[in-house]
Amino acid sequence: MTLHGYWRSTTSYRVRIALNLKGIRYDQVTHDLRSGAHRSDDYRRLNPQRLVPALETETSVLVQSPAIIEWLEETHPAPPLLPADAEGRAIVRAMAAVIGCDIHPVNNMRILSRLRTDLGAGDADVAAWIVQWIGEGFEALEAMIAGYGGMHAFGDSPTIADCYLLPQVYSAERFKVDLTAFPLIRAAADCFAALPPVAAAHPNRQPDADADADAA
Amino acid sequence: MTLHGYWRSTTSYRVRIALNLKGIRYDQVTHDLRSGAHRSDDYRRLNPQRLVPALETETSVLVQSPAIIEWLEETHPAPPLLPADAEGRAIVRAMAAVIGCDIHPVNNMRILSRLRTDLGAGDADVAAWIVQWIGEGFEALEAMIAGYGGMHAFGDSPTIADCYLLPQVYSAERFKVDLTAFPLIRAAADCFAALPPVAAAHPNRQPDADADADAA
Repeated sequence: MTLHGYWRSTTSYRVRIALNLKGIRYDQVTHDLRSGAHRSDDYRRLNPQRLVPALETETSVLVQSPAIIEWLEETHPAPPLLPADAEGRAIVRAMAAVIGCDIHPVNNMRILSRLRTDLGAGDADVAAWIVQWIGEGFEALEAMIAGYGGMHAFGDSPTIADCYLLPQVYSAERFKVDLTAFPLIRAAADCFAALPPVAAAHPNRQPDADADADAA
Repeated sequence: MTLHGYWRSTTSYRVRIALNLKGIRYDQVTHDLRSGAHRSDDYRRLNPQRLVPALETETSVLVQSPAIIEWLEETHPAPPLLPADAEGRAIVRAMAAVIGCDIHPVNNMRILSRLRTDLGAGDADVAAWIVQWIGEGFEALEAMIAGYGGMHAFGDSPTIADCYLLPQVYSAERFKVDLTAFPLIRAAADCFAALPPVAAAHPNRQPDADADADAA
């Protein structure tokens, strides 16, 4: 398999974690989001939405990280990243969706760029925007982890919820969001990050990582 | 079951469609998003994220429409709303995620309100914002339907992709977005909307529908 992604893209990071936890070997092709490489016609032929990630399998090109991760779970069921019961799966998927629908998409690069270019947002406006949506989402997640969490975000085994949570915490730290109000999120992220397959998915350990990249 | 929602919320509309297609009877409790009823402490006890929809089952409260719809598919498998093969399911889920992650969340009420209050966006700015994200997402979806669609968005049977698509088309029409560039989306939405269980889920047919509500 070949993962089209970008080291610092948190949606690519999610998929790398799931691939690594499943023990799947894959190649990586990088698309530099800063230079707009993902907007090329070549990449559009792979993914009409021209976003990363995309996963090339032997028979298809899969897009959208939530769909890719569900596909990985179905085709490579061990180790499971969803609980065995339907209610547990619904809770894990809800935790993932809080991040995947209501935090990440409103804070990603295309949105922040547009706030600046079209609405005249400055650095302080953009920072406040990011803090707002991470804060609202993390407040809900902290309560959900309090209700359902254990060593990990849901129970004592890694799940899809952790695959979303750790990259979102990475993003929050990059944007210097204060996380002291979210001790359970912090603990779950730290516990998960310590697993070797998860650690290997960290942005800084990818072949396209740019040590000189600015913090923004 | 009891669905907590709001007639014009497109995420509630998605869940109503899935419930109706599955032939599940449910009660509805409305939370008026315009007056902020969903931000109450009472509702927070049901859903810490204080967003609609939430589905009360006999044993739990499920939140986040993607998680609720997957739960419905798992617990009420007939009629199926996902294809039988993993690759087909990944494509359907990707179509849903284009809307559920990359169109709806960046255009929902909390985001548009904040554009106005914090960034001084006017009506024209907000309209351009909406057109931008619906346009980018629909461009990708139009290509995906061209590749995989039939009578419906994916093949010739209703899927989860249609449950997301029709409410998003309803929202686009409400915001007066020109859809002439998306004939396949239009055709899929029209075909799906004609199914009686789908028609019964339309916002205007809900008990809390407000015929005097403004177009915005």
